[in-house]
Amino acid sequence: MKEINPSTQLKMSVQLAVTAWDLQNKQLLKLLDTIPNEQLLSEVSPGKNTGHYLLGHLVAVSDAMLPLFGLGESLFPELLEIFIRNPDKSGLSKSSVSELKGNLHAVNTRLSEAFATLSPADWLDRHTAVSAEDFEKEPHRNRLNVLFSRTSHLAYHIGQLALLK
Amino acid sequence: MKEINPSTQLKMSVQLAVTAWDLQNKQLLKLLDTIPNEQLLSEVSPGKNTGHYLLGHLVAVSDAMLPLFGLGESLFPELLEIFIRNPDKSGLSKSSVSELKGNLHAVNTRLSEAFATLSPADWLDRHTAVSAEDFEKEPHRNRLNVLFSRTSHLAYHIGQLALLK
Repeated sequence: MKEINPSTQLKMSVQLAVTAWDLQNKQLLKLLDTIPNEQLLSEVSPGKNTGHYLLGHLVAVSDAMLPLFGLGESLFPELLEIFIRNPDKSGLSKSSVSELKGNLHAVNTRLSEAFATLSPADWLDRHTAVSAEDFEKEPHRNRLNVLFSRTSHLAYHIGQLALLK
Repeated sequence: MKEINPSTQLKMSVQLAVTAWDLQNKQLLKLLDTIPNEQLLSEVSPGKNTGHYLLGHLVAVSDAMLPLFGLGESLFPELLEIFIRNPDKSGLSKSSVSELKGNLHAVNTRLSEAFATLSPADWLDRHTAVSAEDFEKEPHRNRLNVLFSRTSHLAYHIGQLALLK
């Protein structure tokens, strides 16, 4: 390859990681466009989570990245209790599929804006769930690592949602 | 964070990406340990792919990364036709689940050894499916980008296999 300096290579690597995250989000939106809202109320496989729950779960997990990355407050903190701390059949009342789709759009927009402000060094800096002391010992506990983990988590559940097509 | 130079940051970023890939492979092995081989013959949801097919598919896709990355020949090229080019119900005879688990182990071992030889610059260099000319115009068509895509692909199907637990 052409000789390019490490700074440029670093920027490119981080950009590819963010693009991989964006791509999964696009896949999710594309998939949701092919599944009628009523169909999302079904279980992805008998006895497993509904599409409704998985959608809420993904919105809540993405939303929680805002405070975790030190990029502001969650937009819909009420989703945490319903879609992360509790399982599908908790009996808790859930926002409708249509509301969750609106929430998804709002969270993705906010995250994209916030990610655009981060430098490569910011991505390699600690997230808010690790103390400065622990980060000295465990420098991999940075935003980029969480982004990788969240991208895989998103793909995992998209694989399940795709079964509702 | 402590001031570290871009070369070190680049190395760390690439290492995190490889670790994210390794982690998904560990998740797959852990999951396979909890599902009896007979259970993998079931469909992950009625009318969808069997666990057997998905396992073969994942082995074939990982195996194909060896030639794609210029790291040698595929170990089990015969899987391509059965588990990538054709769907589950093709009628083609399939290796057993137990054989595929052995293949998975062999492919993962070979990939790990090969990945350990790659420098950050190698990861950002083109893979074998893109010509030098096209790579000039599309520098994102590198090994690292494929690794991101394959990690998401793996997570997607792990999400489906997990439904067989």
